[in-house]
Amino acid sequence: MIVFRRAVKFEEIDAARVVFFGAFLTYAHDAMEAFFAGLPGGYPALIMERDVGLPAVHVETDYTAPLRYGDALRIEITTAKLGTKSATLRHRMIRERDGALSCVVLQTVVTTALTEMRAVAMPDDVRAILAAHLEP
Amino acid sequence: MIVFRRAVKFEEIDAARVVFFGAFLTYAHDAMEAFFAGLPGGYPALIMERDVGLPAVHVETDYTAPLRYGDALRIEITTAKLGTKSATLRHRMIRERDGALSCVVLQTVVTTALTEMRAVAMPDDVRAILAAHLEP
Amino acid sequence: MIVFRRAVKFEEIDAARVVFFGAFLTYAHDAMEAFFAGLPGGYPALIMERDVGLPAVHVETDYTAPLRYGDALRIEITTAKLGTKSATLRHRMIRERDGALSCVVLQTVVTTALTEMRAVAMPDDVRAILAAHLEP
Amino acid sequence: MIVFRRAVKFEEIDAARVVFFGAFLTYAHDAMEAFFAGLPGGYPALIMERDVGLPAVHVETDYTAPLRYGDALRIEITTAKLGTKSATLRHRMIRERDGALSCVVLQTVVTTALTEMRAVAMPDDVRAILAAHLEP
Repeated sequence: MIVFRRAVKFEEIDAARVVFFGAFLTYAHDAMEAFFAGLPGGYPALIMERDVGLPAVHVETDYTAPLRYGDALRIEITTAKLGTKSATLRHRMIRERDGALSCVVLQTVVTTALTEMRAVAMPDDVRAILAAHLEP
Repeated sequence: MIVFRRAVKFEEIDAARVVFFGAFLTYAHDAMEAFFAGLPGGYPALIMERDVGLPAVHVETDYTAPLRYGDALRIEITTAKLGTKSATLRHRMIRERDGALSCVVLQTVVTTALTEMRAVAMPDDVRAILAAHLEP
Repeated sequence: MIVFRRAVKFEEIDAARVVFFGAFLTYAHDAMEAFFAGLPGGYPALIMERDVGLPAVHVETDYTAPLRYGDALRIEITTAKLGTKSATLRHRMIRERDGALSCVVLQTVVTTALTEMRAVAMPDDVRAILAAHLEP
Repeated sequence: MIVFRRAVKFEEIDAARVVFFGAFLTYAHDAMEAFFAGLPGGYPALIMERDVGLPAVHVETDYTAPLRYGDALRIEITTAKLGTKSATLRHRMIRERDGALSCVVLQTVVTTALTEMRAVAMPDDVRAILAAHLEP
């Protein structure tokens, strides 16, 4: 498990005065970047230098406790599934002020050659990080 | 079925040179506002004057064809399920240039008193629109 | 003068319950795309096929009347200055509900080869549109 | 001077493959929140509990070096001007990889009662922070 902390930002609040539901996918992406921080050059070098990315093919999100401005999240990231070219990350997002589970995002990604937008074999270093945090 | 057209915006492209996966939830929200345009004052009056909103409790998204800058979507919105205080909207997002299905978003929402963030009975006019577009 | 209409979006509201100040630059960009809609393939083809863009080098914004969810803008776009490789667009953003001037954005852009990020001669069709809407 | 570090995020890149020009105002807002972190409860408590905010009335931005995904900024924040109800923050945004000045944002804000959207006397603790970082 990797843990990532993220405060709600001023502009993420919507007209219903809580964090916009789409912003939780931005949180999941931020968390994924933290998850892969151990790659050489981090996630940015994977994208920019190796032309490999992890676009989502399926995402499931459960929203259970809304966030206000001033809130912060503790995000716990694990690998829920690990395939040959795909993996599913589980992001458990916990509202710091009271420990309530705010949101769970299940994000299934496929290792992809970005220029051609074609699935490719999962790089060994990407797999190693995913395997290290695989749920029992 | 309500149909809503939406062009990709310049800033919705991400570092992988396609539309960011979180932006599809913004598209779903735009589509939902179009779906409820027939309410008096539209969706904004529901939120701002009646203090009722439709926050998501569960969202499932399948991504099948990426979008580039210059693409536009035809979004077909139907009611997949209609409950007493909740409903599930289905957004089929079709890439205009080739008719490929780009993304399907299933968005389950609950009628909610926003100030108290508490589920409330579904207003009749909200239900009427949902019922009019219920899948057979 | 080109006129562009834009409703405030649900997620553009911030924690102060008005449109986020940064969103007005997104409005300016939307307006600029409408301004250049007459290019072959529109602004997207300029970017994606000709590898030419109009990045901003200087922007000045005056905020005079805030926007709430439910508001819409009428944006009037003119060319305030036209140079050899640069131009300044003026976006007058008027709140539809009462005609109040909400914001003025002065956006100075430079015609740029995007891959090299280097200023280039202004394409003739870009210049023609800018010249057609030059302030007297 | 307060210093704030901020990495470019994956979704802040636009179709021209650099950070979107509007995102620099988000960076300025992030920096302003860091600047006021010493307030009791930080900037969020000012907004949410005291109903006071600092909406921008005038912003000037110079863009001098673009940012790619993988870049990070060092933002130096000072008070360029301090009035009775208004102040101007200067954000010098420096690209970490080479020390180039990427952007300068001059952000003039007015202390405002948010519910009424009316200028109010500047709270003493807000003034104290602004005064502590006033340029000579």
